[in-house]
Amino acid sequence: MATFLSAGDVARIVHEIGMRRFWLRLVDYLRADFTAWDGFDKSPRFASHSPGGVIELMPANDAAAFAFKYVNGHPGNTRLGLQTVVAFGALADVATGYPVLLADMTLGTAFRTAATSVLAARHLARPESRTMALIGLGAQSEFQASAFQAILGVDRLRVFDVDPAATEKFARNMAGAGLRLTRCANAREAALDADIVTTITADKKRATILTRDMVAPGAHINGVGGDCPGKTELARDLLLDAEIFVEYAPQTRIEGDIQQLPADHPVTELHEVIAGRRKGRAAASSITVFDSVGFAIEDFSVLRLLRDLAIETGVGRDIDLVAAPGNPKDLFSLLRSGAAGETRAARRDELLPVD
Amino acid sequence: MATFLSAGDVARIVHEIGMRRFWLRLVDYLRADFTAWDGFDKSPRFASHSPGGVIELMPANDAAAFAFKYVNGHPGNTRLGLQTVVAFGALADVATGYPVLLADMTLGTAFRTAATSVLAARHLARPESRTMALIGLGAQSEFQASAFQAILGVDRLRVFDVDPAATEKFARNMAGAGLRLTRCANAREAALDADIVTTITADKKRATILTRDMVAPGAHINGVGGDCPGKTELARDLLLDAEIFVEYAPQTRIEGDIQQLPADHPVTELHEVIAGRRKGRAAASSITVFDSVGFAIEDFSVLRLLRDLAIETGVGRDIDLVAAPGNPKDLFSLLRSGAAGETRAARRDELLPVD
Repeated sequence: MATFLSAGDVARIVHEIGMRRFWLRLVDYLRADFTAWDGFDKSPRFASHSPGGVIELMPANDAAAFAFKYVNGHPGNTRLGLQTVVAFGALADVATGYPVLLADMTLGTAFRTAATSVLAARHLARPESRTMALIGLGAQSEFQASAFQAILGVDRLRVFDVDPAATEKFARNMAGAGLRLTRCANAREAALDADIVTTITADKKRATILTRDMVAPGAHINGVGGDCPGKTELARDLLLDAEIFVEYAPQTRIEGDIQQLPADHPVTELHEVIAGRRKGRAAASSITVFDSVGFAIEDFSVLRLLRDLAIETGVGRDIDLVAAPGNPKDLFSLLRSGAAGETRAARRDELLPVD
Repeated sequence: MATFLSAGDVARIVHEIGMRRFWLRLVDYLRADFTAWDGFDKSPRFASHSPGGVIELMPANDAAAFAFKYVNGHPGNTRLGLQTVVAFGALADVATGYPVLLADMTLGTAFRTAATSVLAARHLARPESRTMALIGLGAQSEFQASAFQAILGVDRLRVFDVDPAATEKFARNMAGAGLRLTRCANAREAALDADIVTTITADKKRATILTRDMVAPGAHINGVGGDCPGKTELARDLLLDAEIFVEYAPQTRIEGDIQQLPADHPVTELHEVIAGRRKGRAAASSITVFDSVGFAIEDFSVLRLLRDLAIETGVGRDIDLVAAPGNPKDLFSLLRSGAAGETRAARRDELLPVD
């Protein structure tokens, strides 16, 4: 029997163990999987494009566990009151092929994106960094703020969004978190003197949110919003002046901000820095860029953590995701038990959310 | 909200609408999708191999719906009391990327495999075919027998399995179905004078279940068991003497019985026959072979049917598979509702199967 975790269950798990401990555990799982990088099958994601968006399947596995995530990207969804991105994923036992976990990954994706940003910043930002500019206050923004506060002690935020309602939402969600918030009039003002600049804007076009002159020497840029072909945030001159770090170069050269650069522009893969094989920031005055696009191994990490936390906290529900005939060679007999099943009225609504 | 169908739910649906009507509907959906063949993205399946087996993701989509199936193949599982193959799948709306159905596909895979065999035989077997040899009486055998009876009126079966317990199980499951069963001592005896010969053995090796001399002129061979590299059932001389039909030639040349033949050996894709662009059997005395390996479009068809039947019958349960924040740009607020959630004790067991 597999375990099912809805978004409500994931939220409950985070509440039970505490937000800060959740971030610490997640960064720890990510660090372990980035360190074991060479033991993973690094498959390209499968993508099906349509006029309205894209649907992707992202698999990753090591010798013990297989994970995949279903995720979409439909920029027009907000007009319908729907989310641009929803996701769910599963974790299976490589030894038997049986699924062990099915979980909402809308929250999981938000968590792993922010935790990977922090893991990168821990190796790349100057250790004394406490002030972060946050440009773009959409669905991912609070996760970034929360993770950077929990892991790096970032407690001063300089925030900006073109939409005042987004800023209000952000301030409401972060109220009581112990953060000092400065609302800025534009991206330039937000980036001013920030130790870390996080960009998470959502325009599906080549935008220039951050230029070279807006960034102080020694800053670390956490570029999260430029994550698919044709969607960038960082000016080319800024990239050319920076030390660039990526998750997986073949993917980031297509999807990341570095799609603007020649295919042989030098970049460093984050896992090499984490494993100690390559160094991170060269000098205190360097500008470092983490060009985040999201990689399947990060989904693997968060699914692994959610499976372990479901066991530890007891949150989650059993789900009969695959058939379980008494005799594994006698699948057809399940049709006879179906014939003996209850009426439909007695069976409805069992899976309705209680949130 | 997506709908979840467990294997028990699928069985219940089949019971509610009746086995024969279910087969008719499924063959109809398959025929429609095979006819619309050129409108599908025909992606290669993603496969992750390990010492114990394989885990695959099989996506397929047209302009309206996206489907994928998770499926494993672990030959050693039966030693653990587990099934060799389990599967689940999902169907999503291409316009929004939101999932609409999650379903066990262990039963669905068995159904679509048998229904595709019947769809092929309808175009390839001689119309007067009423006697079928069934060689290999594992988990798929009853589905084949049931589908051929429902759609083609095949009512005489000549059956053989190396394991007497499998034969007993088959006879028990088929009792009362109105089939005349002849238990045979070996494959040769089973194939004797059969109009259709179905092979579904499970050896993961190059086996020779059926040779040229065992098959009568005019027979149709439904080769189901030879379905991955290194796993074949039909002798090379039989294939060389037959007219060969496949689902999707690039995949079947790797996975099917024709992996034994040169890469340019002439084969006909089934969808071309269904669409009327190529003819099926050339003469009443020809030997035809359908070299079945299973293709993602068939999973698409059965998921589409299950979605429609879940609506028609009211069977199935709502599942909160992806997050649904009130404001689509405010994902973080879900963590606050998680904090306000009930205790774990009140939430356990809601998804426990009732079968």
